[in-house]
Amino acid sequence: MLRPIPPGTRDVLPDEMRELRAIQTALLGTFENAGFSEVRTPTLEYADSMELADRRAADSAYRFFDDRGEMLALRTDMTIPIARLVADRFRDVDPPHRLSYFANAYRAVTPQRGELREFGQAGVELIGVPGAEGTAEVVALLDKSLASVGLSEAVIGIGHSGLWEALLEDGGVNPETIETTASLLADHDLVGVERSMKESDSIADETVYQATEMIQMRGGSEVLEQARRFGGERFSDALGRLTAAFEEITRRQIGRQVLIDLGMLREIGYYTGSTIEVYDAAVGEIIGGGGRYDGLMNKFGLELPAAGFTLYIERIHKAQLERGALSSAARRGPEADHV
Amino acid sequence: MLRPIPPGTRDVLPDEMRELRAIQTALLGTFENAGFSEVRTPTLEYADSMELADRRAADSAYRFFDDRGEMLALRTDMTIPIARLVADRFRDVDPPHRLSYFANAYRAVTPQRGELREFGQAGVELIGVPGAEGTAEVVALLDKSLASVGLSEAVIGIGHSGLWEALLEDGGVNPETIETTASLLADHDLVGVERSMKESDSIADETVYQATEMIQMRGGSEVLEQARRFGGERFSDALGRLTAAFEEITRRQIGRQVLIDLGMLREIGYYTGSTIEVYDAAVGEIIGGGGRYDGLMNKFGLELPAAGFTLYIERIHKAQLERGALSSAARRGPEADHV
Repeated sequence: MLRPIPPGTRDVLPDEMRELRAIQTALLGTFENAGFSEVRTPTLEYADSMELADRRAADSAYRFFDDRGEMLALRTDMTIPIARLVADRFRDVDPPHRLSYFANAYRAVTPQRGELREFGQAGVELIGVPGAEGTAEVVALLDKSLASVGLSEAVIGIGHSGLWEALLEDGGVNPETIETTASLLADHDLVGVERSMKESDSIADETVYQATEMIQMRGGSEVLEQARRFGGERFSDALGRLTAAFEEITRRQIGRQVLIDLGMLREIGYYTGSTIEVYDAAVGEIIGGGGRYDGLMNKFGLELPAAGFTLYIERIHKAQLERGALSSAARRGPEADHV
Repeated sequence: MLRPIPPGTRDVLPDEMRELRAIQTALLGTFENAGFSEVRTPTLEYADSMELADRRAADSAYRFFDDRGEMLALRTDMTIPIARLVADRFRDVDPPHRLSYFANAYRAVTPQRGELREFGQAGVELIGVPGAEGTAEVVALLDKSLASVGLSEAVIGIGHSGLWEALLEDGGVNPETIETTASLLADHDLVGVERSMKESDSIADETVYQATEMIQMRGGSEVLEQARRFGGERFSDALGRLTAAFEEITRRQIGRQVLIDLGMLREIGYYTGSTIEVYDAAVGEIIGGGGRYDGLMNKFGLELPAAGFTLYIERIHKAQLERGALSSAARRGPEADHV
């Protein structure tokens, strides 16, 4: 009589577990060496704490009432709980705060698509270092972290959460259309974005042209150069901040491809500046992400700029397997015969 | 604006987190060296899987309905999920199976008493080695595990889940009284046990006397000798099995006090033979427990004897702090200045 397990969850057997623990050791060691110390938060949070920071994230979580009638939620990420923790426990400590985590998070996604509802995340939060300097520190650590788990071919993409809105605002587009198209862009529905713009009366042809161009632009610093002719003052400001971050990253001589991606718009709602995505051609999904969230701490009553990244452990592991980044000795382990 | 966290949960800051990770490394390393390989299971299980194994454990868990109307529960321990995993994934592999875990478990206990609703557990399951030999292997590994986290003064208590029932059955006591008094004994309510026995018409004075004596008997092998005059055939059989386990443990020359405790009756429902509790005088609660559960695998359709132990991580850590088992260097860590 076999008992099933809930959709979107899984058992991990010894050989894989050894590999996941090796990822944990490598990443936490890299974080600690860079001055980022691990913290832990409860698996359960009050749902309104999660919602306060990002309504969309809270919506898709496991939620239920506790014995006092309070709505609890399994955390959807670690960034929001750590913002809460810092506001609560580090209020009287001088910033910056450099914190890291290695923990499970939960999303009630549709498991038919093979997505995990319980998944591992490892990442850092840099709280109190603003702008390009903070972003570049985070990207440099992301580079080291990927190296520590053997992913030399992974690519770091850099975008900016304000580009889309700024370009359309400069073009006089109404707020509803900006919101609709932003949501489609976050879903990578470029056809939908184009259709939605063409159906809107409020968008000039020139803006449609620029927007359609921009979201397909990715590459090196030449992309920043090409985009300078787009938009007006708001767009120019957002592009300037992305350019500053990219220059600071370049100055740190990161030994891997850093790709500027002007079409990047991350799903999570709390990003306010430069955003990060990590790709490996061996895996069909992003293996990590992050960015600046300068408004998040303020929602917990502390006015501090912040940035961070998270890596998805199961996808990191998949990339390692596809890339042959694990030695066969490490994969078998000394005691595999026992099970 | 500070946001609270749910009762019975907590945040862990960097200094403590380093100490908890050191416990993880020490214990998983000790388990692996002894041939016990780590597995992981979902934090969420179907509630009926947990109930199948132990109705009491499932009752006190966080439970809620998923989007299909199925009742899910946060796992209350790792022994039941690993029994499920072994029945599912190791059905065609020759036993014994030696598995370990380091994971959180959840119980919706009353947090007013300061108990954690989310807590860490580390332990092993030895599935397929019966009787005294299996129990002694588990106890020997428990001894090594305690040494690996610096708890040289912790004491291992050994009891037997069948002694109480056997003694009263041999005395002709009715099943209701056996159940009532067993429940009181599991709660360590010795006064209640005595009162309940005296109120019952079905218990002879001699049985009351023996039962009251027995549950206060703890010590070395002399305790087993003294108890031989109690009960009848059933009791003699249970005492014989405990004696065999103790002799096998002694034969393995464990370098720490192993205390026979005839009054031990563990709360969890699936124990079937020798039971284990771990004490450290520096902590007011047991810091670990375990025993034989030869009937548990059968509930998942696989007929295999089993035994194991679990250590409560937060209590292990508390004992380390009380015992000064942590060096001050390890407690501070290299990067404590950053936070």
